[in-house]
Amino acid sequence: MNGASSHTGLSVQPDGTRTVHRTLPDEVAVAMVFNGSTQAVMMATPADITDLAHGFALTEGVITDLSQIESFEITDHPNGIEARFWITPDRADALSTRRRFMAGPVGCGLCGIDSLDQANRPLPQVSNPALRFSRADIANATDALRNLQPLHDQTHAAHAAGFLRPGAGIVMAREDVGRHNALDKLIGAMARAGITPTNGAFVMTSRLSIELIQKCAIAGAPALIAVSAPTAAAVALANAAGITLAAFARGGGFDIYSQPHRITTEVPHVA
Amino acid sequence: MNGASSHTGLSVQPDGTRTVHRTLPDEVAVAMVFNGSTQAVMMATPADITDLAHGFALTEGVITDLSQIESFEITDHPNGIEARFWITPDRADALSTRRRFMAGPVGCGLCGIDSLDQANRPLPQVSNPALRFSRADIANATDALRNLQPLHDQTHAAHAAGFLRPGAGIVMAREDVGRHNALDKLIGAMARAGITPTNGAFVMTSRLSIELIQKCAIAGAPALIAVSAPTAAAVALANAAGITLAAFARGGGFDIYSQPHRITTEVPHVA
Repeated sequence: MNGASSHTGLSVQPDGTRTVHRTLPDEVAVAMVFNGSTQAVMMATPADITDLAHGFALTEGVITDLSQIESFEITDHPNGIEARFWITPDRADALSTRRRFMAGPVGCGLCGIDSLDQANRPLPQVSNPALRFSRADIANATDALRNLQPLHDQTHAAHAAGFLRPGAGIVMAREDVGRHNALDKLIGAMARAGITPTNGAFVMTSRLSIELIQKCAIAGAPALIAVSAPTAAAVALANAAGITLAAFARGGGFDIYSQPHRITTEVPHVA
Repeated sequence: MNGASSHTGLSVQPDGTRTVHRTLPDEVAVAMVFNGSTQAVMMATPADITDLAHGFALTEGVITDLSQIESFEITDHPNGIEARFWITPDRADALSTRRRFMAGPVGCGLCGIDSLDQANRPLPQVSNPALRFSRADIANATDALRNLQPLHDQTHAAHAAGFLRPGAGIVMAREDVGRHNALDKLIGAMARAGITPTNGAFVMTSRLSIELIQKCAIAGAPALIAVSAPTAAAVALANAAGITLAAFARGGGFDIYSQPHRITTEVPHVA
């Protein structure tokens, strides 16, 4: 599956009704299974599922490094795709402890205040103080990503996440109907390829909400560039994690919302 | 809170750098707590939280009717908002059983195949066979919704869900940074106002993925109209649930993807 299907339908327009051929993005249930137990079932575009699963394992903190994966396989089922990990005993124990803490019979679950604290847990600080981006790096980022969106070209309905190296443009990109999945796919693909996120910026075709900032901080990317708006909470969180946040990056311009010190008009220093 | 905050920032444009004033959508953690135990923590725009909580309780199947709520309160905390329900003992028991089944210590969780079956469980069939929409109802739906999006007017970054009655236009609308939350808010608001979804269509500013079809079917709305594309899986699911699905509804036209029998060129019959 490449993530899209052909569909012949009826289009009702002011000047008449006609048959249209649309290519629609696919969507399928993906079960993330660790040591025999399902951690989550997500709806995702069925392309780059190995990347999605590895990115999910990293950004959800199930593992902190791919070396903690003992084996991995993907199995297709009539109702969806199973991504099956066997992880090292210490990580399996950590996940088990977290599960007992997070969910259980009524009365043993977290109360509301504890759940809110858990959801707002502090993020790691991003590092690489030497990393700089030129204004052109950022101003051109979403246009450059636009050239790496084959699923969007077909469907006009998919998000993309790309990784920008200063002076080198977008070096890797992934797509999904969901923006969170697109970023998890990118993070998984980069980890599998041995590309470290600390040397560049994530670029998103979407708006920026808190969960994307969380993924960015956990992956260690010092900057995040988006075509559309951030939420107020996303700006605050990015600033606290030391992330440079640029938004409304389109038409050759952008707004800068946090940590502007990484942006220079000079030729960028590639760290 | 009305869901938005003012932000003064720096805009870097091809013709120079200047200060800009943007209104950004807010986003806050909301804990959904039933009988003392948290069911979910969601990031949401902090407006109409009572609607969101009631809609979540309905579309997640925690309750099937508002009469099963014994008491409800909202509490603000430094880290977010707590929406606290006390529900009837039979519904609390049902939730407890589901929780024990869905999550637990490693080894007792669902295996991957069972999880996928759970995620693809059959949806209820929508009813109201007499309901009809004129082509104009559908063609004008997203333009009509556009007039009911004050948060989007301020931020250019919020989704909306509206309820369309044939011949009457959009009779209620709700907004959120997230499209799933916008629909849950609408469903909660309608339930609280005693408006039944079986007599009209939900209208969304977004793409249509599986989870929106699921919410539509559970709420019982026989039609769903969206400004952008559906996924292939959303089309299949809508068809199976008997939902009329119109997408790319903009510029006075639309594509029809499933159950076209509810669309007529006649003056609509309001059921």
